Amino acid sequence: MKLYYAPGACSLASRISLHEAGLAADFERVDLKTKITEHGHDFRAINPKGYVPMLVLDDGAAITENVAILELIADREPRLGPGGPLSRTRLIEMLAYLSSELHVAFKPLWHDASEIENAKARETVAERLEFLEKQMLEPYLFGPRFTVADAYLFVILRWAKAFGVRLSSHLLGYFERVRERKTVRQALAEEALDEETPVIHLASEPVG
Amino acid sequence: MKLYYAPGACSLASRISLHEAGLAADFERVDLKTKITEHGHDFRAINPKGYVPMLVLDDGAAITENVAILELIADREPRLGPGGPLSRTRLIEMLAYLSSELHVAFKPLWHDASEIENAKARETVAERLEFLEKQMLEPYLFGPRFTVADAYLFVILRWAKAFGVRLSSHLLGYFERVRERKTVRQALAEEALDEETPVIHLASEPVG
Repeated sequence: MKLYYAPGACSLASRISLHEAGLAADFERVDLKTKITEHGHDFRAINPKGYVPMLVLDDGAAITENVAILELIADREPRLGPGGPLSRTRLIEMLAYLSSELHVAFKPLWHDASEIENAKARETVAERLEFLEKQMLEPYLFGPRFTVADAYLFVILRWAKAFGVRLSSHLLGYFERVRERKTVRQALAEEALDEETPVIHLASEPVG
Repeated sequence: MKLYYAPGACSLASRISLHEAGLAADFERVDLKTKITEHGHDFRAINPKGYVPMLVLDDGAAITENVAILELIADREPRLGPGGPLSRTRLIEMLAYLSSELHVAFKPLWHDASEIENAKARETVAERLEFLEKQMLEPYLFGPRFTVADAYLFVILRWAKAFGVRLSSHLLGYFERVRERKTVRQALAEEALDEETPVIHLASEPVG
């Protein structure tokens, strides 16, 4: 497998999930501004959508959309789904919320919009995180099992921290708990991300 | 089953898909402005997210997020998925694109934003539809089979027409082809939607 990624973009959730599943993969960095990969390839020729993640399977099949990639990884390693009745549906429901309600709400912040728009975006993200917090179980989103949805939420919380979104101590505690996982520390190190690193370049919005 | 819906909102895709699958369901209308259902219930007490669709299964399990509901219907009636290798992944990939790239791009238009913002939103929607058009097969998104993703795209194209987004003759032909399906005509009639009906009330944006 091969994952096309940009440091700190939502592809980080795919990387963490691959590590959690014990699936071996190569990783190729994409400059989302120039659309050139670290090996000098034109990323638009590889993925016409022009954004990450893209996962290429060993048979060459290429999959885009974080929600689809994360669901695929949880299908290959069911330990990374919530389990129980309607396990897949519950996972897709959560991933869809993270993607279409939370992730997209960051849009003005990535694009260096006006301070009024940015403040509004921060408020929207904060409200949606508060909503999610009310549904969350302990210690992870669905309870005892760390799922691919936790990997996605971790990435979103990392952006929220970097953009100054208010976060409850409960969510900050969750964030620290996830960050302590071996796979997460490994993924952060591989993307050269640490506390001092800016979230990702502002020009490198992970969604088209 | 019971589907909570608002006329013309993305819940229309769930209704069409239920009909296509031959799954019997009750339908309860939600006023997205007042958050009161047609039977006078407080919808926020039923679904804290406050938006549609919500599908309640016969055992009482309630599912939110259009992507999760459509995938569930295609899981119950596999004829409504694309088939072939990676069938589910390809379906989720398409649904995720429709939801997080296309559906959300309408946001300013629902909220009666400034003409500058609306023009920008129309352009974004048009570009993303043009992208999709290049990937589409004939006669439906994935080729010969009508899938739940076609139901979602039909609803999005209906909004695009109502908001004056430019559409190619190819996409308009696709729209007419889908509208001629018996299940689609039935669904439109059940929601009292026809050519003369406004898309949905502007205050009734289907996403929170």
